[in-house]
Amino acid sequence: MLSARIHEYQKPLVVENIPKPSNVTGEAVLVRVGGAGLCHSDLHLMNGEWKDAIPLTLPKTPGHENAGWVEEIGNTVPEGLFSKGELVAIFGGWGCGICTFCKRGDEQLCVAPHWPGLSQRDGGYSEYILVPSYRFLVKVGKKGRLNPEELAPLTDAGLTPYRAVKKVRHMLGPGTSIGVVGMGGLGAYGIQYARLLAPNSTVIAIDRDDKKLSLAENFGADRTVNSATTRNMRDEVSQLTDGRGVDVVLDTVGAENTVSDSVRILAKGGALVVVGLFGSQIKVPLLPAIVNEYQIIASLWGNYNELKEVIELASQRKIKHAYQSFPLREINKAVGLLRRGQIMGRAVIVP
Amino acid sequence: MLSARIHEYQKPLVVENIPKPSNVTGEAVLVRVGGAGLCHSDLHLMNGEWKDAIPLTLPKTPGHENAGWVEEIGNTVPEGLFSKGELVAIFGGWGCGICTFCKRGDEQLCVAPHWPGLSQRDGGYSEYILVPSYRFLVKVGKKGRLNPEELAPLTDAGLTPYRAVKKVRHMLGPGTSIGVVGMGGLGAYGIQYARLLAPNSTVIAIDRDDKKLSLAENFGADRTVNSATTRNMRDEVSQLTDGRGVDVVLDTVGAENTVSDSVRILAKGGALVVVGLFGSQIKVPLLPAIVNEYQIIASLWGNYNELKEVIELASQRKIKHAYQSFPLREINKAVGLLRRGQIMGRAVIVP
Amino acid sequence: MLSARIHEYQKPLVVENIPKPSNVTGEAVLVRVGGAGLCHSDLHLMNGEWKDAIPLTLPKTPGHENAGWVEEIGNTVPEGLFSKGELVAIFGGWGCGICTFCKRGDEQLCVAPHWPGLSQRDGGYSEYILVPSYRFLVKVGKKGRLNPEELAPLTDAGLTPYRAVKKVRHMLGPGTSIGVVGMGGLGAYGIQYARLLAPNSTVIAIDRDDKKLSLAENFGADRTVNSATTRNMRDEVSQLTDGRGVDVVLDTVGAENTVSDSVRILAKGGALVVVGLFGSQIKVPLLPAIVNEYQIIASLWGNYNELKEVIELASQRKIKHAYQSFPLREINKAVGLLRRGQIMGRAVIVP
Amino acid sequence: MLSARIHEYQKPLVVENIPKPSNVTGEAVLVRVGGAGLCHSDLHLMNGEWKDAIPLTLPKTPGHENAGWVEEIGNTVPEGLFSKGELVAIFGGWGCGICTFCKRGDEQLCVAPHWPGLSQRDGGYSEYILVPSYRFLVKVGKKGRLNPEELAPLTDAGLTPYRAVKKVRHMLGPGTSIGVVGMGGLGAYGIQYARLLAPNSTVIAIDRDDKKLSLAENFGADRTVNSATTRNMRDEVSQLTDGRGVDVVLDTVGAENTVSDSVRILAKGGALVVVGLFGSQIKVPLLPAIVNEYQIIASLWGNYNELKEVIELASQRKIKHAYQSFPLREINKAVGLLRRGQIMGRAVIVP
Repeated sequence: MLSARIHEYQKPLVVENIPKPSNVTGEAVLVRVGGAGLCHSDLHLMNGEWKDAIPLTLPKTPGHENAGWVEEIGNTVPEGLFSKGELVAIFGGWGCGICTFCKRGDEQLCVAPHWPGLSQRDGGYSEYILVPSYRFLVKVGKKGRLNPEELAPLTDAGLTPYRAVKKVRHMLGPGTSIGVVGMGGLGAYGIQYARLLAPNSTVIAIDRDDKKLSLAENFGADRTVNSATTRNMRDEVSQLTDGRGVDVVLDTVGAENTVSDSVRILAKGGALVVVGLFGSQIKVPLLPAIVNEYQIIASLWGNYNELKEVIELASQRKIKHAYQSFPLREINKAVGLLRRGQIMGRAVIVP
Repeated sequence: MLSARIHEYQKPLVVENIPKPSNVTGEAVLVRVGGAGLCHSDLHLMNGEWKDAIPLTLPKTPGHENAGWVEEIGNTVPEGLFSKGELVAIFGGWGCGICTFCKRGDEQLCVAPHWPGLSQRDGGYSEYILVPSYRFLVKVGKKGRLNPEELAPLTDAGLTPYRAVKKVRHMLGPGTSIGVVGMGGLGAYGIQYARLLAPNSTVIAIDRDDKKLSLAENFGADRTVNSATTRNMRDEVSQLTDGRGVDVVLDTVGAENTVSDSVRILAKGGALVVVGLFGSQIKVPLLPAIVNEYQIIASLWGNYNELKEVIELASQRKIKHAYQSFPLREINKAVGLLRRGQIMGRAVIVP
Repeated sequence: MLSARIHEYQKPLVVENIPKPSNVTGEAVLVRVGGAGLCHSDLHLMNGEWKDAIPLTLPKTPGHENAGWVEEIGNTVPEGLFSKGELVAIFGGWGCGICTFCKRGDEQLCVAPHWPGLSQRDGGYSEYILVPSYRFLVKVGKKGRLNPEELAPLTDAGLTPYRAVKKVRHMLGPGTSIGVVGMGGLGAYGIQYARLLAPNSTVIAIDRDDKKLSLAENFGADRTVNSATTRNMRDEVSQLTDGRGVDVVLDTVGAENTVSDSVRILAKGGALVVVGLFGSQIKVPLLPAIVNEYQIIASLWGNYNELKEVIELASQRKIKHAYQSFPLREINKAVGLLRRGQIMGRAVIVP
Repeated sequence: MLSARIHEYQKPLVVENIPKPSNVTGEAVLVRVGGAGLCHSDLHLMNGEWKDAIPLTLPKTPGHENAGWVEEIGNTVPEGLFSKGELVAIFGGWGCGICTFCKRGDEQLCVAPHWPGLSQRDGGYSEYILVPSYRFLVKVGKKGRLNPEELAPLTDAGLTPYRAVKKVRHMLGPGTSIGVVGMGGLGAYGIQYARLLAPNSTVIAIDRDDKKLSLAENFGADRTVNSATTRNMRDEVSQLTDGRGVDVVLDTVGAENTVSDSVRILAKGGALVVVGLFGSQIKVPLLPAIVNEYQIIASLWGNYNELKEVIELASQRKIKHAYQSFPLREINKAVGLLRRGQIMGRAVIVP
């Protein structure tokens, strides 16, 4: 089968034929990949930035945002649960199943994770992916007629901001507001979840690129702020919120300056939820944090039930998908565009 | 009446006679001060560090941790609610009563606060203090035979860590652990609340001073770590927690190095609650924060109901009080000792 | 001033002239009534059903759902806070201000309440109402150009179901459903809050009257069930929810049969929130309750902040108002219609 | 292997030799039973009371509270995770692993459960029990030197009240109180969890039997009330709680009269948690429920993480065990004693 693999860090992926997995036994399911989302995490991985944190034996196939069709079913998968050709989304937070985090349903926080494309387990930039257990598959069904290219990004870019917004939804009643920083892969979904989960709040999109801010308006933002051209973020946000500031900021960038700007626009009692990984430090001035009882909440990916909820929203056609498809053979082109910030929404690799 | 007042920043307090408040009308109650706790916030205030944040017309009487006896009662205070000579603790988070924070019970977060001793309102380093509403008084009762010197610090040093620990109590079941950083005024209470509110967790006291760590053991700490002499905080804490790290750190110092150490010893899914005000920045490394879903929670003082709960605990004689009393005329001596870190527990001024 | 008063239980109200309150001192504010909602509670009260629970010295003016214009301002009301002629809604859950419930913001749960029109305090079926503290007034502002007839019912009929739905909002994510039972005064708002607070859930209106069910559809219900004509509630609701049942039922009736039907249609893990007062017992079969971990949540009125949120929603013109106005002199006609179930939405008395 | 099986409802169990399970493949683990708790649910089952709710092909082995030693390990169990002879507790809420409840960690609420001894799956009144997945085993370790006879009841009698108390722990701060009704198998643990999880509350044990109330005092109750001999439960509880009533009642009986008494002693804002299954109806008077915002919370068993926490508490030797052991051959004698209410704590069957 055709796969795109890391042979060496800081080099292009090698697109090549390798053997199709043959050990589809026990709980395992082989999935024919229909779409695999390209994520900034892949860039960090390919760059070798995480080689100490996540030591890999190369070559290795990245790709942790996957959807496709059931191809082969292991012998201990409950009979009748899945059928060949069925459309599935692959939950990527593969956990051990018995640690405290797995047992509370947050498998993405497993103490001994084996994420596809981000561990020794091969990912989805390939014609087929071996999923070690049917417990990581979400049945998609026919409602909404979703396709794998729409589904794949939902398993990470479309899942991470969902969990993040859900964590602070209780703070977002009538008269409140939420800012979403960064209108890239995650932010394009984040702005939509802000709209869907906080329907009575003012939703403010923040980015440096007016084109992306237009997309945000199309995705439900009430207001937009261009952080590159505004003179004073705090004043501008203050004006948009009757002087209160925003109750919640979802930072999908995580750079030092976005975090710092995010804290400056928070209302008293506000929360900053960080999901972006661009920076190295979260820095918050102490006195305002305490006087205003700020909370800083770091959020990781999403869990299986959250993915089901996201897919339910998509099935109801409440989520707009912003993605560009690339054939597997052109994956390095997609990588290049992503590096240069030239992807609108998400790049999806189609084997 | 005798009062200790700031006449000039960075100068000793002036102890002098001024007129006793005469306008005890409406909801107001005049309280004869029995004890007034000396707080690091007072040092920041006297130093002039907060003169921009909190502009004051000098001279002004500090003192926001107060307890004493009802002396005179305003004409619209509900009849029979208080009687002359009755022991009361003064809740210091005086709010407007109608903003969203006041109306949810968090008056200390009021958008237009008038805290005694920290605003234009005179505080308790004085023979009498005028409390603008009976709604800020907590009846103490006879159970536990508490005295004003024990009570006064409970209204801030003994309240702030209570609110802080309460916010994370749901994370502290069997098999978990909590670290308390800094065994000064707040920490000496913090370690006790960790013990009382998380009875099935391992409680770890962290300080640079072995004498204070001994006090902590006396106050319920299971383990102590001297952060000045330990070679590797993370390793040491790891050993004390079966390799997990601590689920919660309560940082009562808030210096950059304590915050940074605190984050380094957190368990996956852990929370850092900051109440100390020594530093200027909270800095947290981004990647570990997200991978482990850390939360940073800034907590401010406590609310009226929390103060009632603290006093209930004290009435049950479950709280050990560590304080040193000073006559009002010797307040500048107490200030000096506090500056040099030579107070064990809390200094209480007794008019 | 003209007032409608109970002189004797089980008799019509007496509409008569009585002196206008003159003691507008301290925190008190006199409000010229612009609208006063008529509530089933008033019928219970007039019938004498509650005379033991709430002993009253007659004559007494009912009316606990009030809005109007500031007429006169007490001398200790903070200067500039209110101005004469300003439109205000009157929060009716007048509490003592210092009990645990008041201090956590739930004044409607006060241990020593003095509700207007439901205690010795006269209510709003009158040209003027004396409000004992400005802390019970909500400023309305000009946004949305609300009038007192729209506002008055929001203070109870429009507040009670808001609090109720808010309590269970966290259970209402994508793929869930909520049923609202009874499309009377409370239900007409309840169905709208279900729509507004659970935008990704299926909202099902349940009533015995097809005309009221049409109104419910107009107010945002996705589906309707006529409980008088359906053969099997459980089966019908099952069909509307993919066999799951509803995650939440808001019962605005509270009769034994509505409660019993409500429990029968609950999904596993579901919650029944009861706000209606028609019955005398909540009866739930034990085994299904435990096997499915049902929760039964009784909810009382709403608090001040919740009323502010409701008025914010109304100001955004997100709430549709269903009311019929009656001049104060015709109040007994409105009472008769309400008794016979012939009011669509809420009857509002206009002095 | 020797097993005690139901051959016919309403007849004694038949103790007989049957073949030892041989299909220990995949994720399955065979456990040599060291202790199996006898539960009132077993009586309901043997009586045939649940034969419609849980249709069984007889003969069938009951026993859902099990602990023992690993005997044989399936071929896909992660290597090194368990070793032969290792002590384990068996979590009994065997679920499908992929429904919403399983995926949030509440496997005992699975929509398609297969509980040992309460479904077609054979239970632990036998020398060996086949556990279908290692995911249902909790490693016990050596801390506290627990034995299987202590462990077995912890998996249900000792787990159910833990989950129940945990659900309301946030309501149990200083100055509050909790009542535990019924000092049988569950209540003997319930009173201990009340003590352990609500250390600053008054804990009140309620039963009809003074001997059991003595046990309760030994297990940490502050006060006891004999519901058979007291003249007025409400008055008596009122006296013990400064007139407030209890904030929480844990009803481990669930009979109509215990539920009704439980509601009568609740404080304003209180919660009743029901885990007992003796009655058929939960009946709560409507008006007090609403005026006081009562909550009725039905709670089912416990989840895997909660079982781990319980075992952690036991390992710390914080739980006192009240049980009587019976050899497997004498199981019908134990059944008889339990029926007549003559077991103190829990009967444990030892094969």
